[in-house]
Amino acid sequence: MGPHPNQPNLSAGRLGAGPSRRYIARPARPDPAMSDARRWFDLSSPFRMKRGGELVGARLAYETWGTLAPGRDNAILILTGLSPSAHVASNGEDPSPGWWEEMVGPGKPIDTDRWFVICANTLGSCKGSTGPAETNPATGETYRLDFPELTLEDVANSSHELVRGLGIERLACLLGNSMGGMSALAYLVLHPGSARDHISISTAPQAQPFAIAIRSLQREAIRLDPNWKQGHYDDDHYPEAGMSIARKLGVITYRSAMEWVGRFARIRLDSEQREEDPFAVEFQVESYLAGHARRFVRSFDPNCYLYLSRASDWFDIAEHGGSGAGTGNVEAALKRIDVERALVIGVETDILFPLPQQEQIAEGLRAAGAEVDFVALDSPQGHDAFLVDIPRFGAAIAQFLGSR
Amino acid sequence: MGPHPNQPNLSAGRLGAGPSRRYIARPARPDPAMSDARRWFDLSSPFRMKRGGELVGARLAYETWGTLAPGRDNAILILTGLSPSAHVASNGEDPSPGWWEEMVGPGKPIDTDRWFVICANTLGSCKGSTGPAETNPATGETYRLDFPELTLEDVANSSHELVRGLGIERLACLLGNSMGGMSALAYLVLHPGSARDHISISTAPQAQPFAIAIRSLQREAIRLDPNWKQGHYDDDHYPEAGMSIARKLGVITYRSAMEWVGRFARIRLDSEQREEDPFAVEFQVESYLAGHARRFVRSFDPNCYLYLSRASDWFDIAEHGGSGAGTGNVEAALKRIDVERALVIGVETDILFPLPQQEQIAEGLRAAGAEVDFVALDSPQGHDAFLVDIPRFGAAIAQFLGSR
Repeated sequence: MGPHPNQPNLSAGRLGAGPSRRYIARPARPDPAMSDARRWFDLSSPFRMKRGGELVGARLAYETWGTLAPGRDNAILILTGLSPSAHVASNGEDPSPGWWEEMVGPGKPIDTDRWFVICANTLGSCKGSTGPAETNPATGETYRLDFPELTLEDVANSSHELVRGLGIERLACLLGNSMGGMSALAYLVLHPGSARDHISISTAPQAQPFAIAIRSLQREAIRLDPNWKQGHYDDDHYPEAGMSIARKLGVITYRSAMEWVGRFARIRLDSEQREEDPFAVEFQVESYLAGHARRFVRSFDPNCYLYLSRASDWFDIAEHGGSGAGTGNVEAALKRIDVERALVIGVETDILFPLPQQEQIAEGLRAAGAEVDFVALDSPQGHDAFLVDIPRFGAAIAQFLGSR
Repeated sequence: MGPHPNQPNLSAGRLGAGPSRRYIARPARPDPAMSDARRWFDLSSPFRMKRGGELVGARLAYETWGTLAPGRDNAILILTGLSPSAHVASNGEDPSPGWWEEMVGPGKPIDTDRWFVICANTLGSCKGSTGPAETNPATGETYRLDFPELTLEDVANSSHELVRGLGIERLACLLGNSMGGMSALAYLVLHPGSARDHISISTAPQAQPFAIAIRSLQREAIRLDPNWKQGHYDDDHYPEAGMSIARKLGVITYRSAMEWVGRFARIRLDSEQREEDPFAVEFQVESYLAGHARRFVRSFDPNCYLYLSRASDWFDIAEHGGSGAGTGNVEAALKRIDVERALVIGVETDILFPLPQQEQIAEGLRAAGAEVDFVALDSPQGHDAFLVDIPRFGAAIAQFLGSR
């Protein structure tokens, strides 16, 4: 694929939205041979957080694709799952494939010939945005566990500041998948009228106990690793074992048993691929998980993982549905969301965000007055289907966006 | 509940079935206040194992309920899942409740007024039978990882020796649940004509990749615990963290998301129950898992866990369905099983042993000429339903056994 024809048409000057907001393209990757499409947006300072903390000098890393229309009415914001960066797709500045390469681009389901697409690295993550792995300006030390308690409402509010900072009053569409879908619901309920349409993918209006149990166990595996040291690991003493278990458990719950029967069955590794250890990896499915873990453990910061994982457990849109603590419910909260149309997609084989949770979102938005398309896909890939079953997801998204 | 009226009517003299087989009631629990209903059966010595190893002086711990009929035609053998002991239910010698207390006893679904019930602790386990936690007579040391490679075929063969040793040519019924269901299929295919009827519960004809992935991760958690030390832990340096993760992951996959929504929802612990740690247990579901782990980690030997878990991954009835390695398939193997009737039960919410696997067993046994009842239950408790949904399981089992 050649260089991407669409480059952001934004300049620093046009984006400045006030004295506390500026955007700076700081080189983050030291390797000059690596191109980097990220820009940075400075959040309001202090940035006040839901559970009482605040951040000074915090920023979001983001990328854009396509061109913002003169009426500023063609912007789509993508809110991501727990681990992706802002690099959704290749662009002129960074031709490397993004995590949703087949979905976003000219002529693709999210067509950047038409839409101006924005994606930020989540607040609290480690792909350029401020999070536990960044320096705390108050101490000059890495935040680690001194980072304030993070919620998906904070993720939503920081993303909303970015959108406003880019001069956009109202999104044409807010799209969120997985954890990003929960952040998107928070965004919509906290900022009424901030998006015309909404696409909600494989997400939930609140964390349910099965998902909490899985994530709690992932956090426990990291925290029990002696190298975690209450968050004070370094490159030489790194909680690799804990991160590996956490990632493998993630991958197991992101896919589906049905897919794996067809994909791995009981196929074993060749004997020369196997180690002497009597409990070494023997089946292909184990090797597949090991590969996933290997690629992940050093590329995502363990403390950031803990913060974002806990934020997912905490999320409950019901908190926004009542007049006092504990009085709300999911339906009442969804009823406060004001979008014209919504596309809600779920997958029958998703065990982490089961289909009834997407049905609940669809029904709630319908009750709020939105025109809702609810799409239940039978993709075999479980929760991860939106990343890999591009034919089915792409068709649904293209149709929804194309009907505007 | 008062003392159990049914005591085994067997004596050592009547049970001796040959020079290499004798049964000895050795006290295993040192606490004299604890009663113990276990008896021990000496396996043939050497006991030859599927993958080439052999055991010298190995034995099985077992218990019995009810009375063996003069014709020796009323015996039911229960093969267990990975962790249970032989103590299925209370009896005169051990009035403590067993792990299937509501299922086995006078007037219960497995009615000990009529049936003579036998249950052994699985070979390789740590509840009295020979396994990695026992002493290797060749060295005088604990076996640990010197225990030979264990398969469910070895579990089946050792159980078959016990049954023959008790003077029983043919079981009235062989019942296996979970891992024990796989052992039961091995038993039936290796010993044609050894059981008249068969009850197969929440099990599989072969391990599928999702279950392999879960168990592999459980083993990894134990092995990565620095206290595991290649199997050389002791009471003071014990792989508690690894066992805790393994057990929690087990419990998560034994139950169902649906059950937990109703049971735990998003209920939090009271603040006085919570620790200061920012990542401490917060939700009831986490506390529930912690309780399960606490009760398990010191009561089951980690090396035994590794051996039995790996044996489950290795199990594939298809190996018995062909004339040479790799030539068999599940259907051909099941066709070699010779029982008159079978009851096959599965649960729709079971993610570890999904329902299509029980359907496969039912169809295979039907093709083999058995009269098969296939029962798909909608119990919400997932894989563990057979332990807790006694009304549904009990009714199916009582009806099947009662129709003889």
